[in-house]
Amino acid sequence: MSSNYRNFRNSVPWLILFLEAVLIVLFYFFLSDDDASVSSISYPAFQDVNHMVIFGFGFFLTFLKRYGFSSTGFNLLIVVLGVQCSVLIESLLFFFLQRENEDGLKRITKAAVSMTAVVISTGAVLGKTNPVQLILMTVVEIIVFHMSRWINNRFLQVPDNISMMHVHLFGAYFGLAVSSRFSEPSPRSEKNASTSKSDLLSMLGTLFLWVFWPSFNSVLAVENKSIAIYNTYFALAVSAVTAFMLSALTTKDGKFRMTHIHSAVLAGGVTVGYAAHSIEYPWIAMILGLLAGVITILGSYCLQRCLNAGLKIHDSSGVHFTFGLPAVLGALAQVVLVVIKNCTNLPRLGYLVMIHIGAFCLTISAALTTGFITGLILNLKLFKTIPSSKYFEDQFYWEFPHLAVGF
Amino acid sequence: MSSNYRNFRNSVPWLILFLEAVLIVLFYFFLSDDDASVSSISYPAFQDVNHMVIFGFGFFLTFLKRYGFSSTGFNLLIVVLGVQCSVLIESLLFFFLQRENEDGLKRITKAAVSMTAVVISTGAVLGKTNPVQLILMTVVEIIVFHMSRWINNRFLQVPDNISMMHVHLFGAYFGLAVSSRFSEPSPRSEKNASTSKSDLLSMLGTLFLWVFWPSFNSVLAVENKSIAIYNTYFALAVSAVTAFMLSALTTKDGKFRMTHIHSAVLAGGVTVGYAAHSIEYPWIAMILGLLAGVITILGSYCLQRCLNAGLKIHDSSGVHFTFGLPAVLGALAQVVLVVIKNCTNLPRLGYLVMIHIGAFCLTISAALTTGFITGLILNLKLFKTIPSSKYFEDQFYWEFPHLAVGF
Amino acid sequence: MSSNYRNFRNSVPWLILFLEAVLIVLFYFFLSDDDASVSSISYPAFQDVNHMVIFGFGFFLTFLKRYGFSSTGFNLLIVVLGVQCSVLIESLLFFFLQRENEDGLKRITKAAVSMTAVVISTGAVLGKTNPVQLILMTVVEIIVFHMSRWINNRFLQVPDNISMMHVHLFGAYFGLAVSSRFSEPSPRSEKNASTSKSDLLSMLGTLFLWVFWPSFNSVLAVENKSIAIYNTYFALAVSAVTAFMLSALTTKDGKFRMTHIHSAVLAGGVTVGYAAHSIEYPWIAMILGLLAGVITILGSYCLQRCLNAGLKIHDSSGVHFTFGLPAVLGALAQVVLVVIKNCTNLPRLGYLVMIHIGAFCLTISAALTTGFITGLILNLKLFKTIPSSKYFEDQFYWEFPHLAVGF
Repeated sequence: MSSNYRNFRNSVPWLILFLEAVLIVLFYFFLSDDDASVSSISYPAFQDVNHMVIFGFGFFLTFLKRYGFSSTGFNLLIVVLGVQCSVLIESLLFFFLQRENEDGLKRITKAAVSMTAVVISTGAVLGKTNPVQLILMTVVEIIVFHMSRWINNRFLQVPDNISMMHVHLFGAYFGLAVSSRFSEPSPRSEKNASTSKSDLLSMLGTLFLWVFWPSFNSVLAVENKSIAIYNTYFALAVSAVTAFMLSALTTKDGKFRMTHIHSAVLAGGVTVGYAAHSIEYPWIAMILGLLAGVITILGSYCLQRCLNAGLKIHDSSGVHFTFGLPAVLGALAQVVLVVIKNCTNLPRLGYLVMIHIGAFCLTISAALTTGFITGLILNLKLFKTIPSSKYFEDQFYWEFPHLAVGF
Repeated sequence: MSSNYRNFRNSVPWLILFLEAVLIVLFYFFLSDDDASVSSISYPAFQDVNHMVIFGFGFFLTFLKRYGFSSTGFNLLIVVLGVQCSVLIESLLFFFLQRENEDGLKRITKAAVSMTAVVISTGAVLGKTNPVQLILMTVVEIIVFHMSRWINNRFLQVPDNISMMHVHLFGAYFGLAVSSRFSEPSPRSEKNASTSKSDLLSMLGTLFLWVFWPSFNSVLAVENKSIAIYNTYFALAVSAVTAFMLSALTTKDGKFRMTHIHSAVLAGGVTVGYAAHSIEYPWIAMILGLLAGVITILGSYCLQRCLNAGLKIHDSSGVHFTFGLPAVLGALAQVVLVVIKNCTNLPRLGYLVMIHIGAFCLTISAALTTGFITGLILNLKLFKTIPSSKYFEDQFYWEFPHLAVGF
Repeated sequence: MSSNYRNFRNSVPWLILFLEAVLIVLFYFFLSDDDASVSSISYPAFQDVNHMVIFGFGFFLTFLKRYGFSSTGFNLLIVVLGVQCSVLIESLLFFFLQRENEDGLKRITKAAVSMTAVVISTGAVLGKTNPVQLILMTVVEIIVFHMSRWINNRFLQVPDNISMMHVHLFGAYFGLAVSSRFSEPSPRSEKNASTSKSDLLSMLGTLFLWVFWPSFNSVLAVENKSIAIYNTYFALAVSAVTAFMLSALTTKDGKFRMTHIHSAVLAGGVTVGYAAHSIEYPWIAMILGLLAGVITILGSYCLQRCLNAGLKIHDSSGVHFTFGLPAVLGALAQVVLVVIKNCTNLPRLGYLVMIHIGAFCLTISAALTTGFITGLILNLKLFKTIPSSKYFEDQFYWEFPHLAVGF
C-alpha cells in the first residue's frame, strides 16, 4: 500500500509547478501597483513575525525524533506558497470588492499573520500527511480563512486587526477537524516520540516564538501598539511561570515535563491576542496569562485521556490545548472585558456582546465544517494517503545519503 | 540524602504559585497607569535585549552535556519571575520615593537589563542549585541590585544608564559569593563536561549574545546611542580576535579551545559597557577590547589553577573571568578616561574619580556580602540542597520518557 | 607532512597579534571622527545584516559532520578581522581620495555587506585551508573587492549600492579560483559528508539567511527600500517553491534532497539583488526567483558531474551554483530590464548596457585573476598547506577534551 505514494511521488513536482505558474499568472493580472508610500507597518516588526512563522514554528515542530527535516522543510514550503495565495486573495478582494488598497509591506505582513492559522493546523496532522495533502490543505484553508475574515469584517463589523487574531482559533479547530479523518498511529509506534536532542531544538523554536509574540500581537494594531506589547509580555511571563508550576503538579514525582513547557509558555500570548491593545492594567493581562497556562496544562491532561480518545482524534503536536483552548479563553475574556467596560450602556453592550459571540461562533464553525470536509477530500484515494506505519518518518520524503546514526 | 529534595519537590509548585499570586496582587495595588506616550526606548532594541536574556543566555549556558533542559528552561523561569519583580520594585520606588514615572516599554527594558545580573549569577551555580534555591536567589538578588542602584543614583549621583551597566560586576561577584557556600563537585564527575554537540549549541547562544551586545550597551543611553553601538562593535570585534589569538597561545599544540572562545569573545562588550557612549575614537574601544580578551583568557588560566582552588570556589560556567574581570577592567578604564578628559580641572577631577571609585566599591561589596549571606541561607536544611553527586543532571528535575541515547 | 602545520601552529597567534596591532595603529591615524549625526542606515536593518554574516553564514556552513566548530568559529574570526580591514580601507579611500565622509553605522554596515564576499569564498575552500591561509585570503580579498568597487564607482559610474551587490558574484568566483589551486579531497573521504544532525543545524542557518535577505538587499538602497524588500521577499518565496519542485524532479524516487533546499531557497534573493529596488511588479521578481531556483538546481546537477570534474575544482559547499550562477543570472536580468525600460532612447540604452556589462566583466575577471593568484600564493610551502587526508577535520585545529561520540 505504501508503494502508492511512492509511484505518485513523481507527480508531486508537476503539481507544485502548476500551482506556482497559476500564482504568477494571477499576480500578473491582479496585483495592483504598490504605491511605495510610507507603510503603517514597521519593518522590524514585520521581520519578527516573518521570523516566527518561518523559523520559530519550523523549529517548534521539530520535536519528533525522525521528522526534523520535514518539520522545518515542509513548514517553509507551505508558508511561502500560502503567503503568495494570501496576498493574491487580498488583492482579489480589493479588485472585485473595491476595498481600500494597501502597501506591499502591509500585504505581506497580513499574509504572514494569516499563515499562522495554516501552520497551526499542520501541527495537528504533523507526520501524517504527504506534501501534496499539505499543499492542498494550505490552499483550501487560507481561502476559507480569508472568507471567514471577510464575513466578520463586512457583516459583523469586526475590525481588521481583531478578525486577524482569530488565526489561532481557526487554525487549531480546522487542524483538529482535518486530523479526525486520518487514521490514528499505532500507540506502540516508537517514531511518535521525541529525544532529548529534538526536544531541545523544539525549545529553541519555542523561545523564538515566545520572544517575538509581542510583535505578533501588536504588528497590525492601529493604535496602542505599545500597550499591546506591554500586556502581551506580562501575559506570556505569567503563563511561563504557570507552565512550570502546573507541570510539576501534574507529573509523577513533581518533575517538569518538556512538552508542558513547550505548549503552556505560549498560552498567555494567544489568550491576550484579542484584547492586548485594550487592557488597561497589566494585572488583568497577568491573570489571563495565569488562566491560559492553567487551561493549557489541564487541557493537555484531560484531552489526551478523554476527549481525543473518545472522538478518535490524534493531535500530533497538541494544537488543541496549545492554541485552541487559550484562544477560546481569549474570546471569552474579551466578552467579559466588553461587559465590564460597557455595563452602564445596556443597549450598546448587548450589541457588542452579540457581535463578539457571533464572530467567535462563525469562525469556529467555519473552521470545523470546512476542516472536516477538507479532511474527507484529503483522504480520497486520489491523494495516496500514507499508511500509519509510515507516519512520522523523514526517510519517506527525504534522501538520506548519510547513515542516520545517533539521530 | 537525595531523597530530601525528592520529597520536597511536591511543594515546589505551591511556592511558585504563592510567589506569582503575591506579584499579581502587588501589581494590582502599585503599578501605576501606563501613559502610552511615545517611549524613549526603540522597540527593536528592546527586542534585541529580550532575545539576549531569554534565548542568548539560555543557550549560552547549555554547554553541560546533561543539563540542556535545565539551562534553557530554568533560565526562562527565573527571567520571567525576575522581570516581574524588577518592574514591581521600580514601581514601588516611584510610589514611595516620588521618582519620575516611566512608560511601559522602558520599565520592561530596564527589568530585562537588570535580570542580566541574575542570569550571570546563575551561571556561577549552574547545575548545583535546585529550582527553589534559584527562585529565592533571583528574588533576593534583584532586590539587592535595585537597592545598590538606588544608592548609587541617589547618593553618588551616578546616572541611571551607567548604574545599570553594573549588572555584569554585580552579577558575577554575587554569583561567586553564593557559589562559595555550595560544596564542590567531585573532580572526577563525568557529568561536569561538555560534548561537541553541547559546545556547538552553546556557540549558538554565544553568537546571539555577540550580535546583540551593541543593543544592550546602547538601549538605555540617553544620548550618543550610535556612538555606543559603534564602539561596542569594535570592542567586541577585537576581543573576538584576541580570544582566538590567546587561545592558541595558552593551549598545548596551539589548538583553539571552545570554552576560551565562548567566554572571551564577549569580554569587549562587557568592558566598554560603562564608557561606550563617551569614547571618542574607535581605537580606544579596540584597545579596551584587546585588554578585555587578554584579561579573560589569562584569568581563566590563573583563576582555575590558583584562586578558585585556594578559595574553594567552583564557578560552573566561568562567570568570574567571562563577566567579572572584564567588568572590573571596564570600571578602571572609565576612571582612566575621566582622568584624561578632566586633567586640567583638578577639583572636578578628584570629585569625579571619587564618585566612580565609590560606585564601584559599593556595588562590588554589596554583591559580595549579600551573595555570601544568600549562599548561607540557601544552604539551610530547609531548602534541601542537592548532594554533589546529583549535580549537573537534568534527570533530577525533568521527566525523560525517551531514552537519553547519544545525548 | 601534516606535522608541518603542527609545528607552524605555534606561530599563528603571533601573526594574528601582528595583524590586529597594525589595524589598531592604522585606525589611530586614519579613522576620522564620527559625526554622530543621524545615520541613513536603520539600526535594526544593520542588525539583521550583522546577524546574517555572523550567525546565519556561520551555521549555514556547519553541514560537514566533523567541521562544526571550525565553520562557526573561523567564520566569526574572519568576519571580525575583515570588517576592521574593510572599515579601514573605506577610511583610507576617504582620506586620500577626498570621498564623502560617512557615519559610523553606515561604515560598519558597508563593511558587513562587503564581508559577505569573503564568507562566500571561504565556503568554496571550507575544510581545506588552515587559519593562516584563511586570514591571508580574507585580507587580500577584501582589498581587491574594494578596489574593484572603487573602479566600478569611479570609471563606470555604478552607484554605490549597486556595486555593493557584486559581493555574491565576486565572492563565488574568487573562491572557486582559489579552490582550483588546492588539491582535491579523496573521493572516498568519509569526513566530507553530512549527518542528519549537521544538516538540520545548517537548515537553521539557512532559514536565518532566508528571513533576513530582504534586509540585506534593502539596507544600502538610498530610495525605494520598501520596494526592494517586497520584491526580494517574493523572489525568495518562489525560489523556495522551485527548490522543492526541482529537488523532487532531479533525485531518484522523487525524494527531496536537503542540500538542494539549502542552496536553492536563497537563489532568488541573490538574483534580485541588483534590481530589487527598481522592479515595478512583483511577478517579475517571482519569475526571476523561479529562474534562479532552476539555474541553481540544474547547476548543481551539471557542475558536479561535468565542469568541476573537468577543471578539477572542488567546491566544498557549492558556492558556484548557490551564489555564483544566480548572481550571473541577476546581472543578465538587470541588463534585460534596462533594455526594456529604455528601448525608446537608443543612445542612452547603448551607454547603460555597456556600463552594466562592463561592471559585470570587470568584477568577474578581477575575482578570477586575483583569486587564482591568491590560490597560488596560499599554496606556497611557507603557509604549510594541510594534506588532503586532514581536510574537514575539527580535531586538527580544536582541542577535544570530550570524546566526540555520536557527533
